[in-house]
Amino acid sequence: MFKRGACLLLSGPSGAGKSTLIGELLREFDDIYFSISTTTRKRREGEVEGRDYYFVSPQEFREGIEKGLFLEWAEVHGNYYGTSLQPVLQALEEGKLVLFDIDVQGFLSVKKSPIASVTTSVFITPPSLEELKRRLEERGSDDPATIERRLENARREIEYMGEYDYILVNDDLERSRREIVAFGTVARLKRDREEVEAFIERWIHTH
Amino acid sequence: MFKRGACLLLSGPSGAGKSTLIGELLREFDDIYFSISTTTRKRREGEVEGRDYYFVSPQEFREGIEKGLFLEWAEVHGNYYGTSLQPVLQALEEGKLVLFDIDVQGFLSVKKSPIASVTTSVFITPPSLEELKRRLEERGSDDPATIERRLENARREIEYMGEYDYILVNDDLERSRREIVAFGTVARLKRDREEVEAFIERWIHTH
Repeated sequence: MFKRGACLLLSGPSGAGKSTLIGELLREFDDIYFSISTTTRKRREGEVEGRDYYFVSPQEFREGIEKGLFLEWAEVHGNYYGTSLQPVLQALEEGKLVLFDIDVQGFLSVKKSPIASVTTSVFITPPSLEELKRRLEERGSDDPATIERRLENARREIEYMGEYDYILVNDDLERSRREIVAFGTVARLKRDREEVEAFIERWIHTH
Repeated sequence: MFKRGACLLLSGPSGAGKSTLIGELLREFDDIYFSISTTTRKRREGEVEGRDYYFVSPQEFREGIEKGLFLEWAEVHGNYYGTSLQPVLQALEEGKLVLFDIDVQGFLSVKKSPIASVTTSVFITPPSLEELKRRLEERGSDDPATIERRLENARREIEYMGEYDYILVNDDLERSRREIVAFGTVARLKRDREEVEAFIERWIHTH
């Protein structure tokens, strides 16, 4: 039958509840490969190489760009961030569900990449900007300037939500949990053309 | 938030197990509108108007075609079959999940229709043509000539499965049940551009 995996790509503003829902997916499914970004920014206290990020030098990163090793990459505040293609392709080959937690720019790059045809994209949003502000303030981990910047980012990102396959409004955690697990189930039923053609070929000729 | 419904469109050869999976959806969700076809063919024993089909005269059907009342229609063996647009639009307006059990030709028409942007399409297939033959023979409701015709149709329809958003290989009923219910959950998170734009507008201005 079908052996290759597929991708589930999640975007949404900080404070939308993405991390909680990703935790839910990782608890529910044991065959998920959670895509880890590569970055040139300094490792922060508590961050682990290969869990939070792959940390590389700017030169290594630029070489990777030139060799086309990145599925997507961006420069943010003088640091590079990107997703290496190779581990994603390997996970797909192993039949895994590849999970992306990625910003809008990254999504737009993935949309033009070879894995677009096996990717289900979901934009996760809080019900309103007001509610997002309330959540960020309640969380208490950001100073007012950071919160203002996050809200500004959210305002910019939300404009792109129509580009995603699906929109999940996270206003009821129980429902959102059910929905994200359902995405974990169906996303893997997206198949690339090559595998579909091989399936049809086999299907017809077993008669 | 979002008020309008969305569509889940299922195709697949007779004997793929579609009816069982549709029964599962109807049991699981109480807000599904199961789209009923309109036909000019004679009503058979046991068939109920408005449950199995809407039965109309050829003249009524042709008038409907001229007035653009059909989402899709086809002429098969001298009879017309089609899906009226109006009840579908009303169900969407009421926020329901509209369920289509439709052949490949119908799907290709829906793909070009105004509801395409809110439709998740799934092709349901048995694991092989051999297995399909076995199931049809075991079912015992068709004579050999009908089985041969069904297999011929299946061979023709399977060629189009790559056109669908997702492919469900029905080789394990328990897994297929979980998958179809997951589709019933996520399909409604597909939103039309108009509603997305209104959401963004509201979202930004609640601040």
